[in-house]
Amino acid sequence: MSGAVRRSRPVALDLRPVGYVIGLLVTALGLSMLVPLTVDIVVRNGYWPDFAEASAITALTGALLALACANGTSERLSIQQTFLLTTAVWIVLPIFGAIPFVLSETDASVTDAFFEAVSGMTTTGSTVFSGLDDLPHGILLWRSMLQWFGGIGIVVVAMVFLPELRVGGMQIFRSEAFETMGKILPRAAEIAAQISWIYVVLTFVCFLGYVALGMSSFDAINHALTTMSTGGFSTRDASFGAFQGAPEYYASVFMILASLPFVRYIQVIAGHGRPLFRDAQVRAFISVILVVVLLLAGYQVAFLGRGIEESVREAVFNATSVMSGTGFASVDYQLWGPFAMVVFFTVGLVGGCAGSTCCSIKIFRYQILISSIRAQIQRIHSPHGLFTPRFDGRPVDDEVLNSVMAFFVLFVVSLGVLSVLLSLTGLDFTTSLTGAATAIANIGPGLGDIIGPAGNFAAINPTAKWLLIGGMIVGRLELMAVYVLFTLTFWRT
Amino acid sequence: MSGAVRRSRPVALDLRPVGYVIGLLVTALGLSMLVPLTVDIVVRNGYWPDFAEASAITALTGALLALACANGTSERLSIQQTFLLTTAVWIVLPIFGAIPFVLSETDASVTDAFFEAVSGMTTTGSTVFSGLDDLPHGILLWRSMLQWFGGIGIVVVAMVFLPELRVGGMQIFRSEAFETMGKILPRAAEIAAQISWIYVVLTFVCFLGYVALGMSSFDAINHALTTMSTGGFSTRDASFGAFQGAPEYYASVFMILASLPFVRYIQVIAGHGRPLFRDAQVRAFISVILVVVLLLAGYQVAFLGRGIEESVREAVFNATSVMSGTGFASVDYQLWGPFAMVVFFTVGLVGGCAGSTCCSIKIFRYQILISSIRAQIQRIHSPHGLFTPRFDGRPVDDEVLNSVMAFFVLFVVSLGVLSVLLSLTGLDFTTSLTGAATAIANIGPGLGDIIGPAGNFAAINPTAKWLLIGGMIVGRLELMAVYVLFTLTFWRT
Repeated sequence: MSGAVRRSRPVALDLRPVGYVIGLLVTALGLSMLVPLTVDIVVRNGYWPDFAEASAITALTGALLALACANGTSERLSIQQTFLLTTAVWIVLPIFGAIPFVLSETDASVTDAFFEAVSGMTTTGSTVFSGLDDLPHGILLWRSMLQWFGGIGIVVVAMVFLPELRVGGMQIFRSEAFETMGKILPRAAEIAAQISWIYVVLTFVCFLGYVALGMSSFDAINHALTTMSTGGFSTRDASFGAFQGAPEYYASVFMILASLPFVRYIQVIAGHGRPLFRDAQVRAFISVILVVVLLLAGYQVAFLGRGIEESVREAVFNATSVMSGTGFASVDYQLWGPFAMVVFFTVGLVGGCAGSTCCSIKIFRYQILISSIRAQIQRIHSPHGLFTPRFDGRPVDDEVLNSVMAFFVLFVVSLGVLSVLLSLTGLDFTTSLTGAATAIANIGPGLGDIIGPAGNFAAINPTAKWLLIGGMIVGRLELMAVYVLFTLTFWRT
Repeated sequence: MSGAVRRSRPVALDLRPVGYVIGLLVTALGLSMLVPLTVDIVVRNGYWPDFAEASAITALTGALLALACANGTSERLSIQQTFLLTTAVWIVLPIFGAIPFVLSETDASVTDAFFEAVSGMTTTGSTVFSGLDDLPHGILLWRSMLQWFGGIGIVVVAMVFLPELRVGGMQIFRSEAFETMGKILPRAAEIAAQISWIYVVLTFVCFLGYVALGMSSFDAINHALTTMSTGGFSTRDASFGAFQGAPEYYASVFMILASLPFVRYIQVIAGHGRPLFRDAQVRAFISVILVVVLLLAGYQVAFLGRGIEESVREAVFNATSVMSGTGFASVDYQLWGPFAMVVFFTVGLVGGCAGSTCCSIKIFRYQILISSIRAQIQRIHSPHGLFTPRFDGRPVDDEVLNSVMAFFVLFVVSLGVLSVLLSLTGLDFTTSLTGAATAIANIGPGLGDIIGPAGNFAAINPTAKWLLIGGMIVGRLELMAVYVLFTLTFWRT
């Protein structure tokens, strides 16, 4: 490229640092396949050669990629490289994560296998597999593991990368993540390590509780992995319908824990519990859940004549599941009537806190938007006054505000466009609209007969599956992080 | 109030100037009822006493109100008074406009009558009446007149009031409306008068064409009134299904004319045609319509095997009707399949140009939002560069940008909240969602079996009707103009 004189800055984008990191991650993914392989050997299902093959392909490809790119690594990634890396992770890893589904018992088509892997690593939880109860343990565990990897992956990306990329208003958390650590943890890698440990410990505690409440240890480990990642894959076709009662309350607690800003847990461990409880996002998130539960439970008791305990329990579990983007279902809440359907559709577009495993629009954006609208109303009344929108007490500058609003607009427009495209493949109105929403917001189930809480995504046509795959990846990476790759400006170094 | 010492500024809001204007408008509305009265006498339907009663009640109440408030008029309305007046017009006038529906043949309930009158004056066009073909001429004409009044009313409000109120980004047109007039038309009242004349002339031309194309003169005058106001009330249950063929193309032209910024027509009359054709809104609006028509017609020809002429004609007419928020239907386009349904739902949320009779989000807001997002992408790439969003070549300042984004957010959130409330009354998912959209965007028909293009709003429960009434008024007045009345700040003078 040194001969290109017409370009003002003829330096080509160096892809090697991106390739190197991707290579290492793919290698790690390949090695992690030894876990389901081992499980398969233990339970003697006979599918271990498939996992061995998948593991070998994955680990070797990853290692070769890393080696090939090793000479180009640098201390710091440029902004462009960071963008590329972020999107590449959620495209490349699912490609390899899908291999066991193609090779093993599930014998899935490439489309189905990739859909399942993307649904896993984006922590969406929409599934194309049915007859889950009879699937080999290795495959079930692999699905759960993909979600768990995706969950910790996004927390690290959201805390370390996105604020630097100034995407979707996440820059408001830029200084916070580092400042609140004090001088003890100055580096991003250390924060990532701390958060990973917290994630592991919480998952383990979740697992222990599930066992104590009567799940088999295999069910417990799978659901612990997919609860803490707000993923929502289950080992049962009935999802949490197979574990009604106390496990629903227990799971709700951990879905909520997974929806809070993980950085607060570091502070809790350091002995500072107050920031967690005083966090504006946390308070708003809990408040919205309480209101939704009251509405849904009250509606069931008052209009459907159901018992208070089951109404509250099912409302708590399913509302938390949808709002956190987990996507477990313990009942077909569509049977509660149109009110419940619309409420579930709406709260799915609220989402959890930034810096958690949750997706969707997220509570802090609504808080910033509401504050901005309030400031405008004041300005209408007093045209010469100065009113600044605030978040958590601090003023929100125009750059953050514009990013947040742009995110909101992009989210709604993406939802509209994806709905139109899905309907073009022949899906009905409700399936198109809620399918688009559940993909972009990484929830799991949609509404309607096909993809509702009692259905799955198997019957959807392949074109629609690919559209949903796109929606899941775009939504997981806060839209702009992907869209920016499609602009000409980006590629003009 | 002079004794209130605890208030810092104890001057109460003076409602008299608002009451005076409302009184005058109500009086005029009452007098305008003499038109359907006369028609009824001419066609000898025998309902003229009902119109006489309604006219007397309305005109007298209006006159008394104006007289009672006459001592408080001033040269200028304050911002608060302007807000109050704007909302009051679209609440008070429909109350009186509903009287003929209660008294006459239709014998409507108060809810139905008020719904129909609000649907009229907001130019929505949703109807609770069926058997339109057999309704007395006076009533049919009155419905069309309400829409026509609502249409010219909103153009004047949007051009004169809303920019001053700095609502929803309309302030971007503040200077424009006055500047483009040059020094010939310095005052708002003169602009309003000019625009009213243009509106009358366009309506008359529309009427002549309809007659030439074979409509009876009664059908022609009604449809001319509701075409130019992008209202959508018809004299037939089949709506434009009764006038298929050439009238569909002709109506499309006038629906488009009614969707363009009326201020441009003043320029055209003054001999300056270029501003109209170079207007960024106009170009974008026409482009979107072309794309949608191509999509819908292409889909029908390719997948439904229909003829090219009828596919194009029906696509042109129905897409223009929904996008302009008119709401005529010439066929049940739901039969074209889910793709068409989702497309119609989506384009209804686009809308026409600011300063026209159209409602919904409007094309200029999308243009500003897209420009803002583009500026952000450039900023991501070059963090230290300065990138300003632009509209029609001019930079958009932060205040306008924030207003536009706030409008978008409020629109989407209002849509969500109204959907939830509608579903709570027992309406199904599609009816709730599209009912909320068609009300807030002032379109007319929704989707689904009940309120779809082949149905009407008669079967909807009364609670839902009142919710939709609220949605229509809020949507018509660009949301913020109504919402601001619900803030405490507003009432603290």
